[in-house]
Amino acid sequence: MKVDGVPQRAIRLAADGWAVEIVDQTRLPFEFVLRRLERLDEAAEAIAEMRVRGAPLIGVTAAYGLCLALRRDASDAALAEARAVLAATRPTAVNLRWALETMAAALRPLRPAERLAAGYARAAALAEADVQACRAIGDHGLGLLERAWRARGGSEPLNVLTHCNAGWLACVDWGTALAPIYRAHDRGLPLHVWVDETRPRNQGSLLTAWELGEHGVPHTVVTDNAGGHLMQHGRVDLCLVGTDCTTARGDVCNKIGTYLKALAARDNGVPFYVAAPSSSIDWSRRDGISEVPIEERSGREVSHVVGLAPGAERVEVAIVPEKSRVANYAFDVTPARLVTALVTERGVCDASPEGLGRLFPEHRDAG
Amino acid sequence: MKVDGVPQRAIRLAADGWAVEIVDQTRLPFEFVLRRLERLDEAAEAIAEMRVRGAPLIGVTAAYGLCLALRRDASDAALAEARAVLAATRPTAVNLRWALETMAAALRPLRPAERLAAGYARAAALAEADVQACRAIGDHGLGLLERAWRARGGSEPLNVLTHCNAGWLACVDWGTALAPIYRAHDRGLPLHVWVDETRPRNQGSLLTAWELGEHGVPHTVVTDNAGGHLMQHGRVDLCLVGTDCTTARGDVCNKIGTYLKALAARDNGVPFYVAAPSSSIDWSRRDGISEVPIEERSGREVSHVVGLAPGAERVEVAIVPEKSRVANYAFDVTPARLVTALVTERGVCDASPEGLGRLFPEHRDAG
Repeated sequence: MKVDGVPQRAIRLAADGWAVEIVDQTRLPFEFVLRRLERLDEAAEAIAEMRVRGAPLIGVTAAYGLCLALRRDASDAALAEARAVLAATRPTAVNLRWALETMAAALRPLRPAERLAAGYARAAALAEADVQACRAIGDHGLGLLERAWRARGGSEPLNVLTHCNAGWLACVDWGTALAPIYRAHDRGLPLHVWVDETRPRNQGSLLTAWELGEHGVPHTVVTDNAGGHLMQHGRVDLCLVGTDCTTARGDVCNKIGTYLKALAARDNGVPFYVAAPSSSIDWSRRDGISEVPIEERSGREVSHVVGLAPGAERVEVAIVPEKSRVANYAFDVTPARLVTALVTERGVCDASPEGLGRLFPEHRDAG
Repeated sequence: MKVDGVPQRAIRLAADGWAVEIVDQTRLPFEFVLRRLERLDEAAEAIAEMRVRGAPLIGVTAAYGLCLALRRDASDAALAEARAVLAATRPTAVNLRWALETMAAALRPLRPAERLAAGYARAAALAEADVQACRAIGDHGLGLLERAWRARGGSEPLNVLTHCNAGWLACVDWGTALAPIYRAHDRGLPLHVWVDETRPRNQGSLLTAWELGEHGVPHTVVTDNAGGHLMQHGRVDLCLVGTDCTTARGDVCNKIGTYLKALAARDNGVPFYVAAPSSSIDWSRRDGISEVPIEERSGREVSHVVGLAPGAERVEVAIVPEKSRVANYAFDVTPARLVTALVTERGVCDASPEGLGRLFPEHRDAG
């Protein structure tokens, strides 16, 4: 999508054809900085420190991280080691493990000398497949938005609430939850997005608001606490969020706080949609609450916040008393019963084993 | 309650016997500063800028604010004018209007020359009544905490989740929701408090965490998004919050985000208690969602945050892109159906017209 009028992607190969360039998301929205990754440890650091984040983008970054490792050593041992290093960076996102498995399955049968070129080709294919999946989610979601807009009379802007960032910064391009919004906006459907701030890392106010602003989509940043009030007063027509891990029965593990919005949507009769590329689906898991590991991150993400001080200087300030303990759970699980529908690259389906099985018959036994 | 071992109150008369001293809550937790109020406009500014906040404390501050106005002019016109200025500072809190009505009803029949002394006496009585009400809420709530602790086996600490600040900083002393917690802690009942950060003004992480820390109560600060996850995993035994406006049928208007926690509590079978002094009850209103005016405050409270920069300097930093719109709703309404019980100074009751009518028969017709 566009930044200051120029099309950008969240990750790409550098002009030299081998190093990887990412948008450093820890610097947004105050600075737009590309960061060059040349080694495995730099790719792992970028994922762990959330310079790249968002389930699909983590997967693609890990795939390229494997390639950077293969440049130094393409042996079986080095491949296994690199895979382990990358898999350990973030425990919850399915796409990370999925991308690493896909890469390893393709590379292991090859002779070491063939692996590097094959790895880059495979990583590029993963990136391109992600773009296509996001575009398809955009098309399928567009239909939902158009119907919702017509259903409410088709004059006033459609109000969509989103949580965290499931935009192009979370993917390679387009985004998952934001793809239908970009498609609708580009088509001229009037809409307005309520952007949850999304504590503790503020991916909503820092990333989603910036993305939407750069693309010209009307939006308003609210605190994570505000969504229930907005829904009680008819100010939200539908919710649309992403997912870091979708189980075979349709439970959705996404950024912490998603579950609370799904409860408010149910209580107020507001549809709650989840944009779920198949790369986010863990067909081996059913019960999200008991089976999906929830990452706990540094308390510093809660006790401190980075912002722009007067004079345009980036400063990290403490916002919790020094003596107080903090805890930082990164994700929660929204049970399938609260999800109106999943929007996948193959279409829209019920959040249920049957719904997923209809679109993904090759996994029908998993549900 | 104690600060650094010394008993403090949130508001008191200065040593000269006429000026008012408040704890300036906009400076906490980084500095403990008393602020002297000598004029009506200073009292109104302290309420509007939330140097004092919390429904009960706002009421007491307004009562003393009237006294400061009477020092200059005790005429009928001046009394009415001062009342209007103070009532306009915050639209949602019932206690503010209630305290002003109580004061005006007592002072209007008097000759102007008698009003000043009577006003100070009445304001002091309101403050003392608030302390007694909070202490009584503490006693009644203590019973709930003890029963909950025994019900879960009586060994591990009881986990209580609270939202915003309904502690002694929100009242004169003790607090409403925190009063039972202080009572239980002082009695030796082992407990641990999950403190919601409470965006946008962070009254949880800045004020509740500081209060609990100064008093020695174990606690952990979490983001507002985390409560649902904690409840899904059995980490919360009960929720206990305050209220800025309780309707005659038991709807509870409290800091934005309270409703989301009540939904999560209901979904997970966790009791949701509201500490509601009768001064917070608006007997003239029934449906909280349609009848209680919700204050919208400056977007700057969302787009900026104050914290401690390295070097111990207080700095306000921007955390939303400059181009993005923000909205700031201060309260939401938790319908009575989600409230397990109200804890009033007269005892514990159902959040219903019948429950409130039993404890407050003088208002039975209101429900």
